[in-house]
Parts: sequence; C-alpha cells; structure tokens
Amino acid sequence: MQKITILIHCEDQKAIIASVTNYISSIDGNIIYLDQHVDADENVFFMRLECEFSAKNWNIEAIKTDFQAKLAAPFNMSWEMYTQNEKPRMALFVSKYDHCLYDILGRYSAGELPLEIPLIISNHEDLKAVAERFSIPFHYVPFTKDIKTEGEQKQLDLLKEYNIDFIVLARYMQIITPNLIAQYKNQIINIHHSFLPAFPGAKPYHSAFKRGVKIIGATSHYVTEGLDEGPIIEQDIARVSHSHSIEDFIMKGRDLERMVLARAIKLHAERKTMVYDNKTVVFL
Amino acid sequence: MQKITILIHCEDQKAIIASVTNYISSIDGNIIYLDQHVDADENVFFMRLECEFSAKNWNIEAIKTDFQAKLAAPFNMSWEMYTQNEKPRMALFVSKYDHCLYDILGRYSAGELPLEIPLIISNHEDLKAVAERFSIPFHYVPFTKDIKTEGEQKQLDLLKEYNIDFIVLARYMQIITPNLIAQYKNQIINIHHSFLPAFPGAKPYHSAFKRGVKIIGATSHYVTEGLDEGPIIEQDIARVSHSHSIEDFIMKGRDLERMVLARAIKLHAERKTMVYDNKTVVFL
Amino acid sequence: MQKITILIHCEDQKAIIASVTNYISSIDGNIIYLDQHVDADENVFFMRLECEFSAKNWNIEAIKTDFQAKLAAPFNMSWEMYTQNEKPRMALFVSKYDHCLYDILGRYSAGELPLEIPLIISNHEDLKAVAERFSIPFHYVPFTKDIKTEGEQKQLDLLKEYNIDFIVLARYMQIITPNLIAQYKNQIINIHHSFLPAFPGAKPYHSAFKRGVKIIGATSHYVTEGLDEGPIIEQDIARVSHSHSIEDFIMKGRDLERMVLARAIKLHAERKTMVYDNKTVVFL
Amino acid sequence: MQKITILIHCEDQKAIIASVTNYISSIDGNIIYLDQHVDADENVFFMRLECEFSAKNWNIEAIKTDFQAKLAAPFNMSWEMYTQNEKPRMALFVSKYDHCLYDILGRYSAGELPLEIPLIISNHEDLKAVAERFSIPFHYVPFTKDIKTEGEQKQLDLLKEYNIDFIVLARYMQIITPNLIAQYKNQIINIHHSFLPAFPGAKPYHSAFKRGVKIIGATSHYVTEGLDEGPIIEQDIARVSHSHSIEDFIMKGRDLERMVLARAIKLHAERKTMVYDNKTVVFL
Repeated sequence: MQKITILIHCEDQKAIIASVTNYISSIDGNIIYLDQHVDADENVFFMRLECEFSAKNWNIEAIKTDFQAKLAAPFNMSWEMYTQNEKPRMALFVSKYDHCLYDILGRYSAGELPLEIPLIISNHEDLKAVAERFSIPFHYVPFTKDIKTEGEQKQLDLLKEYNIDFIVLARYMQIITPNLIAQYKNQIINIHHSFLPAFPGAKPYHSAFKRGVKIIGATSHYVTEGLDEGPIIEQDIARVSHSHSIEDFIMKGRDLERMVLARAIKLHAERKTMVYDNKTVVFL
Repeated sequence: MQKITILIHCEDQKAIIASVTNYISSIDGNIIYLDQHVDADENVFFMRLECEFSAKNWNIEAIKTDFQAKLAAPFNMSWEMYTQNEKPRMALFVSKYDHCLYDILGRYSAGELPLEIPLIISNHEDLKAVAERFSIPFHYVPFTKDIKTEGEQKQLDLLKEYNIDFIVLARYMQIITPNLIAQYKNQIINIHHSFLPAFPGAKPYHSAFKRGVKIIGATSHYVTEGLDEGPIIEQDIARVSHSHSIEDFIMKGRDLERMVLARAIKLHAERKTMVYDNKTVVFL
Repeated sequence: MQKITILIHCEDQKAIIASVTNYISSIDGNIIYLDQHVDADENVFFMRLECEFSAKNWNIEAIKTDFQAKLAAPFNMSWEMYTQNEKPRMALFVSKYDHCLYDILGRYSAGELPLEIPLIISNHEDLKAVAERFSIPFHYVPFTKDIKTEGEQKQLDLLKEYNIDFIVLARYMQIITPNLIAQYKNQIINIHHSFLPAFPGAKPYHSAFKRGVKIIGATSHYVTEGLDEGPIIEQDIARVSHSHSIEDFIMKGRDLERMVLARAIKLHAERKTMVYDNKTVVFL
Repeated sequence: MQKITILIHCEDQKAIIASVTNYISSIDGNIIYLDQHVDADENVFFMRLECEFSAKNWNIEAIKTDFQAKLAAPFNMSWEMYTQNEKPRMALFVSKYDHCLYDILGRYSAGELPLEIPLIISNHEDLKAVAERFSIPFHYVPFTKDIKTEGEQKQLDLLKEYNIDFIVLARYMQIITPNLIAQYKNQIINIHHSFLPAFPGAKPYHSAFKRGVKIIGATSHYVTEGLDEGPIIEQDIARVSHSHSIEDFIMKGRDLERMVLARAIKLHAERKTMVYDNKTVVFL
C-alpha cells in the first residue's frame, strides 16, 4: 500500500468535501484520515487527508496533475501532496544551550522523528562535540551585527547545499535575517521560553519571577519578522510557587522547552500544521 | 437557518464520506462540522456531521426518510438525526452528597447546559431543599435491597411520566437495576471518584491514600451491569502529595467530580458521544 | 483541643524558627503544621504555623500578649494569630455574570468554604434572584463614573454595617475606588479571565483568539490600583485549538474562572496567603 | 560556605523541631530550607533541612557525632546527613528500549543531574553503541531464568566494583532478584508505563487501549518484591482519545516515561525522598 497526505486550503465553498472525497474514491483510494476546519470569520476552508492506494497502478505524478485540474483549479485551492517516503530535511540552529539539542538528537536517534537532520549550524563552537557524538555535520557560522551579511550568506549556502526543507532554532540566540525568513516562510520554528504573548523578548524567566506568576510556560512558533510574534504551534506550562528561585524557573523551563519544541517539530514534519492569518491550524 | 446533527456508525466501506457529503450537498445543506473515525481493529466507521439548511423548504421528516433510503439502507448504517431544538430531558439521581448537584443546577441555571432537568429522584430526603431552591420537582424514592422491585418500578414510572431521555447519577449511592440499565442503554451517566480502572467500588479515596499515589482522579462513564466497568466518557486528575490527608483527597476530589461529570453531561447532551465495544468515541 | 494559626513575616535573622518553636513548646502547644520561606533577594522571612493546645488553661489573649513581648518585639515581626473559630466575613461584588456566583454559593452551601457570606453587592439588579435562592442579603448599589463617590460611600457603609473582612469580585465589571482598595489592602480578590500578564484589561478571550494561542487561562489576584497588576494568588489554564471559536474560549474560560476564583477564596479564608512586594507566598 | 542536608524520621514527639533548630543555631548554622511532615495515622515525624555553615571551623564528622548524641539518641531518630559534594553514584539498567536512556544521558551531559553515572548494565547488547556515544562503561550481563543466579552475582560484583549507591531501571525488562532488592533497599527506581495501580504488569498500553481510558500515565517507584507495588515517587498523565491507536499510546507514553523517570531520579539524587510504610514523603 502507498500512503499520501494532502493539505488544502481555499475560500469556503459548497461541496468541497464531497468533491475531494468523490475524487479519492474515483481513483480507488481509501481515506484513512480526514479532518477539516472552516474559519468562519475569514471564510477559509482547511482540510487534511490521508489516503491509501494499492501499490500497482500507482502514479503520484499523474494524481497530482489530475488533482490540479479537477479540484485545485475549479476551487482555486492552495494545496500540498506528500508521499509517505518524503521525509523533510531539517537544519538545527544552536548557540550554547545544549538541552534542546540533546533532546532532539536523542529522539532522532531513537527513531521518533519522521525527518532527516543533515546539518547543525551554530554561531559558537561549544556544541560541536555534541554534534560529533551523534555523527551529524556541524558548521560553525559566526554571526554578529558586524558580519550579518556574511553570516547570512554562509547560512543560505549551507541550507542550499544540504537541501534543507525547514529550520529549527533550538535556543539559537541570534536573530534570523528578514531575507532568510522570506526564503523559509513558515518553515522556521523557534522555541520561546515563556507563555506568549506574556514575556516576549529577553529574560522571560526573570520577568515571570518578578511578576510572581504561579505558572510558567514555553511556546513554539513559526518565525516572522516581529520578535516572538509568529504563528503559535504549541504551548505548555508548569506550576511554580513562591518557593522557587529564578534558577528553579529556568530548570523547570528546560523541560517545557524540550517538550514543546519536540512536539512542534513532530507536528511540522508530519505535515499536520497549516498557517493562515498569523495563526496555525494543527490537525492532530 | 436550521441546523441538524447526524451521528452514523456502520461497517467501514469505500465511499461512505463521499456518499454522505454528496447527499447533503444535493439537498442544499452546508456542512459546518464533520468528524469521522475508523476503528481499524473492528472495521467500524463513525461519523458526526452538523449541517445547516435555509429555513424555507425545510422538512426534517422528508430528510430522514430520504436518508434512510439513500444512505442508511445501502450502507447498513445505525444513525441518529437531531434538530437544534430538541433538548434532551435529563433526570438527576442523588443521595446525600450535594456538591455535584449544586454544580449541575448552577450550570443549568446559568444557561450552560443544552438540556432540560424536569426531575430529581433521590433515595433520601436530605437534598429536597436544594431542589426547591432551584424549583425542580424532587421525588423521594426509597431504595434498598428489600424494596428493590418496588423502588425500580417507581423510578421507571417517574422516568416515563416526565418523558426522560437520559439519567445522571450525581453521586447516587445505590446500584441501578439491570432492568433500568437495559431500558436506558448508554443513557445513564455515572461519576466515579477514582481514575478508573484504578480503585473501582467503594472508598476509592481511602484506597488511593493507602497506596500512596501522587495523582488522584475522577471518571464519568455510561452505566453497565459491571460495577464501574462501563464505557468511559471523560476523566481528569489532580496532584496530591504526602502532605494531604484523606480529607484533603476527598475535598480535591469533589472538584474533579464536579468538573468531570459536568463535561460528560455536556458532551452527551450535545450528541458528541457514541458507544461501541464498551468504549466511547467522543467528537470534540 | 484548640487550634491556632500564626502568620509571621520579618527581616530574616538567625534563630527565628528555633525561637518560635521553642516558645510554642514552652506553652505546651503541639505544632501540627509548619512551613517557612525566605525571600533571599529581599532578605525577608515568612512563616505559617498551626498549633494545637489542650482546651483547659487556654487563653488566647494571654498568648497574644506573650507572643508580642517575647517574639514579635525582639524580632520586629509583622504577625497575625487566628483561632479556629474565627471565620472571615466575605462580601461578594457581582454585576451580571452569574457563573462564578452560582459556583461560590453552591460551594458555600455545600459547606466547603470556611467563611461567612453575609452580603452581596451589585451594580445591577439582575442577580438578585440568585441571591434570594440562597437567602443572602442582596444590595443594589449603582455605580457609574457620575455617581462614583456616592456609590463608594454606599459600598463602604454596607461593608462596615455587615462587618466585612474581605471582598471577592466575582466578575464585577466596575473598577474599585482607590479609597476602597486602601481600606481593604490585600483583602480584595479579583478574577481576571486571562493568563496574566498576558491580555490584561477588557476582552481577553477575544485577544487570545486573535493571537492564536493554544492555551487560555484565568488569574485570581489581590486588587491594587494598577489594573490587573496586583499580587497573583492562583492561575490555571485550559487547552484550546483552531477548532474553537471565541464562544468556545468564553465557555471553557468560565470553568477556569470558577475554579481559580474558588481556590483563591479558600486559600485566603484559610489564612494561607501572605503578600510581599506585589507577590504572594501561598502556603499549601 | 558549606551546605549540608539532613533527613530525619522518628516517632512524633513534642519539641523535635525546636530541638533540631536550636541545635543548628547553637553551632552557628543558618537554616535555608526546612520542611516537615507528620503522618498522623502512624504517628511518625519526617523532616528535611538544608543548612549553611561558614567554611572555617567546619567539621562534618564532629557535627555527625554531636547530632547523634544530642538529638538522634534522645529522640530515637533515623537520620542521614549529606554534604553538598557527595554526589550519589547511579547504575543504569537497560534492555532494548533507548528513549529513557537517551533522555537520562542527555540530561546528565547537560549538567542537570547531581549524580555520577559510572556504569550501564544490560541484558542485551543493543544499546552498547549509545553508551559509547556518551563514553560510559557498558557491561553486558545476560540474565534469564536459567542463569539467574549467575546473572545476579555478576550484577552485584559490578555494583560493588563501581561503588554504586542507587540503581535506575530505564525500561529494563527483567525482574530484579530479591537478593539485589534487599541489598539496595529503597535504592532501586523503576519506571512503569501506566498510571499505577491501574494496569500493573505487562503490556499496560494495550490494556489501557482496550479499556478505552481517556488518560494514560506513567509511574516511577522504588522496587520491592511485589511487582509494580513499591512506594510511588512520581506520576504523570497525558490525554488520549478514540482517535489514538495503541501505537499512539506508546509514543505518547514514551514522553511520560522519560519525564517521570527523570523527575524521580532528580528527587532521589537530591535526597528529597523518604520511604515509610510503602509510601514516599517527597519534600519539594
């Protein structure tokens, strides 16, 4: 059996679901997952399907051509179609914090993530040894205000060379250039160590401590030009009390960061996220 | 606009979704919610739809007849169809504990529950005053081993008289007779004060305390003949520690019981639950 | 047996715990609960004790005098001492939302709250019937910008007449005057329907929806002059997704508001909260 | 400054706290943490203290002798005293599952765990490469019913050779012999992949799926002779629904197992757990 995943969004119209499911039936596909969402305010329709086909007579390119002509064109759809075997290629950007890096590489090595990690880029050399432990190419790309253009070019070259589909900032402590954001639109995932929109920017644990909150959080989101303002993919929280110091907040936060980032990576790699109007539709 | 909700289950077959959504399109309905589930082990298909129709030319009985002929018969479906205005009628069974009763009546009075509560039945007279506060008929139906048959008959008479659709046991401390269970199959909701299947039966908080668990729970489920073994609708938990006494467990548990039972009642009243093979499909 | 609860805070110094526990021992008291906290940054010591005494020879006023002379004076302590029987008297301020009101009155009637509710004040007449159901005096006190002074005076008169210890704003939709805040310092509890400091002010569910958060929250806090900026007592959260409308946020939020406010009320009434530097110490 | 941690338990008696805190004051120690618990049913007192001493004149052995004579003997205390620098030495037992192993070694490498890991023991050779990545000695110790005695002896020899303080079973799929349990009483931590006492024994995710639970869990506990019956250290849960397959349960469960086991290891290594009557006191 061959499996494909289809993501669709378009203006909401009558008979979209009927038309798509009819089509799948007509080419002898079996729908094993269907979820859909209508944004009533914006009148936008979103859909995610997984279908199975028997392997013989299977021609993904023919299906794509057909789909475009029979469905995408008449309904004016934006759409993507993936076969089971296409694993997205992910670049990790890191600086000095190693906890998210260890977590991601551990999960990757344990076979939990449906993706390839051909490349780690860092603006520091500290984590080279970690990359080597896991036998993943590590590239040191210095990046400061002074050499921003040079740094960005080197990043882009490496991303191209390694044929990267999406980027994960695993506590990467430098800003991403607008040019890189534009080239990887909705393909750069960041982990911010607060419950956004509370405490954007630097030192959120310190701010949370000062405010006396009883719950701290972490947020993974797609990177946009506005700092910590991109579409949110996943959030989670942990309880804290007066008895916890800032160091306790940071330590508890590490677990949140790890978990929330890992979930966002998995959702993205499994093509379960769609972005619209600075928000995400996440089909679980 | 008129809204209907359709619940379907049948053997999984090709083209069910396409056929149903085509049909809705063909009668000018607009699908505003569709969720579906396939139990792969049992090869059973489940579906829940909400559709809107413009009010003129609307004839629910004609749609039902049509649906039976064109879809239910060929696919051998079990199905239910509800219009927006049909609020289910719920009977509350209580004994002496008042916290769930206050919570349900508070929510009901605040307009949060899409149902009617025409009747409260109790095997004790203690909570009569609570029912009166909320102006709901209260019937004292003694029920012990000795007068089981008599008690059951009185219950059945009242349920019939008040035209009751489903029953909620809000910490009702008597067993329900097999006959009543049979007449209200998958229509009797109980709240058990543990995280089932841990600690079924009597005094679960005491057992949880003795075992030294770090988390306690509550479970709402449909009542079957096996004690605390029916299909689970909803569960939730709360953290406890060595510093909590049994009384603390009970007090924390009250919040769980209230919340879990209220959620189950709402899900059931909104026709979001389906039962199969002693499990529930809950379409959120 | 007689039970007392003691709350202490003072500059952190050597031998405070030893001195206090020695003193309790010296008067034949038995410590059944002791928790303490040191704010290392501010060098402040906090302590909460519960002690039991055999009923004969018991003289709370003598103990208070003794405590002041032997401990409070030398250590320069701020302190409070309560006997078991002193239930704080709470006024409820409401407007039109009834869900928190029903929840609090239900819990109160079910005997879960160690306090008295002699008074409900509202700037609308809508909830009078609810107060009557629970047989609690309801006072309609209009309050707008134009009659602020008059409204405040009437509130203060009622609070005095009913001998009120603390105030709970159960979705009371008017601001509290600085004068009233000053007279009830750290004795006015508000429930805000967001995860503070995210979304302060009006319409937080709408803002949360627009931002596309995956978790919503509620926060109970002591009222200070800064809007939604007072010391946080308790927070909790619920998961949301793209499939939830603003109405769903509001409905889920009602459960959070109820729960978080009820917990804060209980903590306050049990003398488990202490305020310092716009933060709370909550001894669980 | 030197820091020590003291754990005490004994029959509950008057003036224990006063005596201990007086003693610490008398030797110029500063209490920076004190928590205590009384098991009222069993009349047992538990206490955990952290104290700081200025480094000069510091003599831990003298303090221990003193403490025994002045406090432990008169109050008949069981007690332990640790200096800050004594990191416990932990052996990891694994079989074929690698997710907990990666997680623990990642945390260890990131400096999050106050312990040493000098030794990994496995009844299979599969995970040798993982141990090598992290440069930790890996010993293959076959263990089956037939060579149980031989296997146990080899385990004991290694534990002695590496001077091991406590053992963590990171999804080790063999039983631990009564002899080893006796030699490491309350020093062997297991992770069980269910919410105990629900679903003890083999294949808990399969049982949970079959029962139709809405929440799954994981439990870390000290190993005793009764299977999955030892004192519980930590538990956590995750929500599941009808849409999740057994494979989904297992994948979600991996995150729970990782997190719950990591927390239990940290609590144990920080000397925050005490065992009594098959339950734990966990001082957070």
